[in-house]
Amino acid sequence: MKQINTVLLGLLCIFFIGNPIISAQADPLPSWNEGSSKSSIITFVKAVTDKSGPDYFQPSERIAVFDNDGTLWSEKPVYFFLYFVIDRVKEMAADHPEWKTQQPFQAVLEGDTKSLAALGEKGLIELIMTTHAGMTTVEFTDIVTKWLQTAKHPTLHKPYTELVFKPMLELLDYLRTNGFKTFIVSGGGIEFMRPWVEEVYGIPPEQVVGSSIVTTFEMRDGKPVLIREPKLNFNDDKAGKPVGINQHIGRHPIFAFGNSDGDLQMLQWTTMAGKGKRFAGIVHHTDAEREFAYDHDSHVGRLDKALIDAKVNGWTVVDMKKEWSEVYP
Amino acid sequence: MKQINTVLLGLLCIFFIGNPIISAQADPLPSWNEGSSKSSIITFVKAVTDKSGPDYFQPSERIAVFDNDGTLWSEKPVYFFLYFVIDRVKEMAADHPEWKTQQPFQAVLEGDTKSLAALGEKGLIELIMTTHAGMTTVEFTDIVTKWLQTAKHPTLHKPYTELVFKPMLELLDYLRTNGFKTFIVSGGGIEFMRPWVEEVYGIPPEQVVGSSIVTTFEMRDGKPVLIREPKLNFNDDKAGKPVGINQHIGRHPIFAFGNSDGDLQMLQWTTMAGKGKRFAGIVHHTDAEREFAYDHDSHVGRLDKALIDAKVNGWTVVDMKKEWSEVYP
Repeated sequence: MKQINTVLLGLLCIFFIGNPIISAQADPLPSWNEGSSKSSIITFVKAVTDKSGPDYFQPSERIAVFDNDGTLWSEKPVYFFLYFVIDRVKEMAADHPEWKTQQPFQAVLEGDTKSLAALGEKGLIELIMTTHAGMTTVEFTDIVTKWLQTAKHPTLHKPYTELVFKPMLELLDYLRTNGFKTFIVSGGGIEFMRPWVEEVYGIPPEQVVGSSIVTTFEMRDGKPVLIREPKLNFNDDKAGKPVGINQHIGRHPIFAFGNSDGDLQMLQWTTMAGKGKRFAGIVHHTDAEREFAYDHDSHVGRLDKALIDAKVNGWTVVDMKKEWSEVYP
Repeated sequence: MKQINTVLLGLLCIFFIGNPIISAQADPLPSWNEGSSKSSIITFVKAVTDKSGPDYFQPSERIAVFDNDGTLWSEKPVYFFLYFVIDRVKEMAADHPEWKTQQPFQAVLEGDTKSLAALGEKGLIELIMTTHAGMTTVEFTDIVTKWLQTAKHPTLHKPYTELVFKPMLELLDYLRTNGFKTFIVSGGGIEFMRPWVEEVYGIPPEQVVGSSIVTTFEMRDGKPVLIREPKLNFNDDKAGKPVGINQHIGRHPIFAFGNSDGDLQMLQWTTMAGKGKRFAGIVHHTDAEREFAYDHDSHVGRLDKALIDAKVNGWTVVDMKKEWSEVYP
């Protein structure tokens, strides 16, 4: 023991803790079948982390952005936040007897899916503003957290936070292990995601970009609060996604994953605007048996132009049915 | 050597690399004189990082927010971005002969400080929109970067990025060493700060919250760009600061530092809204010799109500002249 000086011990420690050969032996993406998507992801990550190669990015530049609905978790039959809206309307109805005969609330209360489908954007926004505003930010977080603890998917009968994609959880981990900072960039409400994404995806609240409503600061009984107002602040969808990325992150992502035409501009912004190697991926929902199958004609998560552009631009399209050995954890 | 098994080596490594006794010996805040501010900072950091104590916060909750102008760097005679505005107007004037007789541009070109001081918010916004908009985000970053490389403070004759406060740089480092994530929350323009704050403060662009103008996404010659529009998007000042913190970070800070009434709501939000131990600090500019001395009556960086509230609330007020052994690096 006496012969070991601290320098030698230091070297041993570096070998013991940081040996890249040992850590590279395990498959980082076990739920991804061998195929073009898996190999294109691994090839990209190896290229941008290889210090001696031409495509190297230092860790601070390794920004990875992920859409949420349909990319990290399911989004069918409708976006999950709509089930939250429906449950909130039912819960709030006791204080609003007028809703029994007033649209769009009547359709929600009567489970009238036909009228709900015909609502259009105006009715949908009215429902969101009614159910998402009028309380403090802390109160809203509490409402979302409690709802997620009990709510279950109508056909899959599982809590929504279990309907996340196992292969994507592995991908998030794989990227972080390789020095990437992972962000969510979603059209969904930012405060609807923040209460649970850290536990489920390992993505902290400050790395969530999403749609938001206006909040205002005030002192209430001597305590500062932020009140959620029934007014849209930012729509983080389509051309809004690059805007949200720039506003929130202020760097150019080098890796992006989406699943619908709502992600097209984010994929363009990631791959076409900056210098150096880039990766764009699309989750293609092809598995009607284990999940859902939809693309060009779907109302929810429509994947049309982005799928066509993917071919032209050489983006990675993941065939869920063929390329994922498991879907949910 | 044969006697050392891997478990023992692992334990040795933990001792060798992570020994807290060794790293605690150096003074983490050498430019802070012994006094109430230094001791209140160190007492707070020790309390919230002590796993066995009642005030412990896990690292993910250790969010620290800092104002920029007057808190991390100087702000006199006027906010530094105004010198950028003035230089930009002069540079752009060749393409705008009409500015010679058109306010507020005429005042800038003639160095007419009296007219400039009388501009008011409307004239100031017109100057900002003219000089900060009309280009892509990438072009604007380039303009700011180049300006900072050559511009010098009118009376101190140093580059602006050298007019940052050495004690605050030490504080940022000290907090990060103790697991804090450090953010800027400034009324200044977010894209005016991002190009240089990582190198100067060690704060990455994604941890900057600031005022912003609207940007829009478009494809220009087949390449995606974000165009900066002459329209205010968000004013990150006063009651806007808690809104910006919530929008961008989505967590409650436990540590905040400001220097003016523009920071009052941020300090209230940090100390009065959440549970557990909190720290609020104010840089009080008392050093006319080494920096500038101003508070209640100053037009730039006015510190009036926040200084009165600091006494009531037990916030830490840093007397720059007495408590800082050095001001600039």
